[in-house]
Amino acid sequence: MKRYIVIMAGGIGTRFWPSSTEERPKQFLDILDIGKSLLRMTYERSLQLVSNDHIIIMTNKKYLDLVKKDLPELPIENILCEPSRNDTAPCIAYAALHIKSRAIDSSFAVLSSDHVILFEEKFITAMNKGFDCAEAQDCIVTLGIKPTRPDTGYGYIQFLQNDNEVKKVISFKEKPDIDTAKQYLESGQYFWNGGIFIWTNKCLINAFDKHTTGIIDVLSQDMHYFNTTEEQSYIDKVYPLTDKISIDYAIMEKADNIYAIEADIGWTDLGTWASLYEYSQKDDNGNVIQNDNAVVIDTNNTIVKVKDGKKILIKGLSDFIVIDEDNALLIFPKNKEQEIKASLKKFEN
Amino acid sequence: MKRYIVIMAGGIGTRFWPSSTEERPKQFLDILDIGKSLLRMTYERSLQLVSNDHIIIMTNKKYLDLVKKDLPELPIENILCEPSRNDTAPCIAYAALHIKSRAIDSSFAVLSSDHVILFEEKFITAMNKGFDCAEAQDCIVTLGIKPTRPDTGYGYIQFLQNDNEVKKVISFKEKPDIDTAKQYLESGQYFWNGGIFIWTNKCLINAFDKHTTGIIDVLSQDMHYFNTTEEQSYIDKVYPLTDKISIDYAIMEKADNIYAIEADIGWTDLGTWASLYEYSQKDDNGNVIQNDNAVVIDTNNTIVKVKDGKKILIKGLSDFIVIDEDNALLIFPKNKEQEIKASLKKFEN
Repeated sequence: MKRYIVIMAGGIGTRFWPSSTEERPKQFLDILDIGKSLLRMTYERSLQLVSNDHIIIMTNKKYLDLVKKDLPELPIENILCEPSRNDTAPCIAYAALHIKSRAIDSSFAVLSSDHVILFEEKFITAMNKGFDCAEAQDCIVTLGIKPTRPDTGYGYIQFLQNDNEVKKVISFKEKPDIDTAKQYLESGQYFWNGGIFIWTNKCLINAFDKHTTGIIDVLSQDMHYFNTTEEQSYIDKVYPLTDKISIDYAIMEKADNIYAIEADIGWTDLGTWASLYEYSQKDDNGNVIQNDNAVVIDTNNTIVKVKDGKKILIKGLSDFIVIDEDNALLIFPKNKEQEIKASLKKFEN
Repeated sequence: MKRYIVIMAGGIGTRFWPSSTEERPKQFLDILDIGKSLLRMTYERSLQLVSNDHIIIMTNKKYLDLVKKDLPELPIENILCEPSRNDTAPCIAYAALHIKSRAIDSSFAVLSSDHVILFEEKFITAMNKGFDCAEAQDCIVTLGIKPTRPDTGYGYIQFLQNDNEVKKVISFKEKPDIDTAKQYLESGQYFWNGGIFIWTNKCLINAFDKHTTGIIDVLSQDMHYFNTTEEQSYIDKVYPLTDKISIDYAIMEKADNIYAIEADIGWTDLGTWASLYEYSQKDDNGNVIQNDNAVVIDTNNTIVKVKDGKKILIKGLSDFIVIDEDNALLIFPKNKEQEIKASLKKFEN
């Protein structure tokens, strides 16, 4: 059975303003200031699982050039472009059909391009186990992230307690309120949903057939276009006709053959400036400074991101976010970050 | 007697970092955000006293193009370039000799290009009185700014109390410490030294001859070069040979024929961000926002200067200075501004 990795890189990055913009969303940014974009890190991580001709990038047409630039060594035919934003279920269905056209007998994993995984070795081990399990049992496998706090920003996965590493999934839960999240955490019967799924192509397509109407039908009406030079124009025609629905709603909340592998992989979806702060190295005053010429005085627990080459002189900030981009400047209390999105609506244009 | 205005525009602008830089110092900036540089405002103010062919700009060679761009209608021969930075006494002596070559019988006033005068009408009235007085008495006249606070950033002028508008000056005082400044203020016998001087050319050159050695001699050894196409190359040769000394040290602290005209003209040398804040219009929360697309929340008594077109989202600052330029960003408590200069030394380059 041939293994593939599908990396979803079509998101528009509404968080991480002003660094992430629709023109250049989060996955293409070196948001960790380590010289690589999140997409590039995901790609390189995937190379430990499969060779690069088995890595497929799903993205929006608009980002094709960004992907090419970020992954110049990736075969161009491994970048598949969604002509419209129809959420994750059609995107994954398209990936499944494309892979099927390359290799009938195949399995693949879906990864997000903009998540962080700190413990790569553990990730690789868990993924290989996931592939083995998905291929052996013809089931859907997900990595279950053990929660470390009652986070209300993540979906949860309820599983059946057993002594095995592989747990039967009872149900997928949407983002909970804080009390529910606390209850989940205390019960010990929930994982965070990290959005990492593994399945055989056959199993997934069956699940689409069983639980959704139309998505696979619409996309597969002319299977002979796949893996040809006409694939894109075919997809341009049929893809926009699919339902706009997430893989969680379309499949995960309905399928009963899902298993979770407990994975202590240091995962975060890096959804907020505060989470970037948490995952970044701090100076003695707890500051994260992404800039090569900063003078920072009487300032603590603050994240500062200003392009290298620009001088910054800061004094007297505590628990702040300071993000400077060419066309926008953000100075905001770190613990008020959730208000940023609403505040942005106040701009004149 | 022909009247001239000499505007000194050669300063390098060490304050107002990061807006003012040696490449583009304060006098060339629209620091008040009103669409005109401080130099341009000084020039236009001077046009109410003399016609533009009687306005002389003294600047450094390096800023010639900036002056031309800022004052395109000024005759080019009215821009005189200092080839070296020798402080204000040689600069004013050069201006005096140049004007003498144009009109033997002349008087002129010296203005700084980077000061603010709020009450223009009162300024014009005081200046005309100053010219009248200087020409009638053959004396040195200065405008005396009535102090409104014990400012330690200004020099002071001690005068002899009388009932006239024109006061005999007893002495010039350097920037005092706070206790002395308070004493000056309480005594009612001191003005701020606004650096505005008026004199006849003859009176000034006599004062140079009497109180300084060499400056006039060095500059006037070949008077026939003045007001010719060879003036600049001549000045390039002799000007650097003059003593580096300020007009205050060279003349004001020594001359005994100085009179001050009390002038309530809303003067400030605009020497600090805080003074710019004081002189600028504030919103309901006491913020001065120089930007056309700012969203500012829970922020007060703060000055924000970010180029138009750049979005800014700020929350939670009190009494701060936020200045953003292409190559530098300053975020500093307003009442700690005096520490900025020392902090700048910490930059790597």
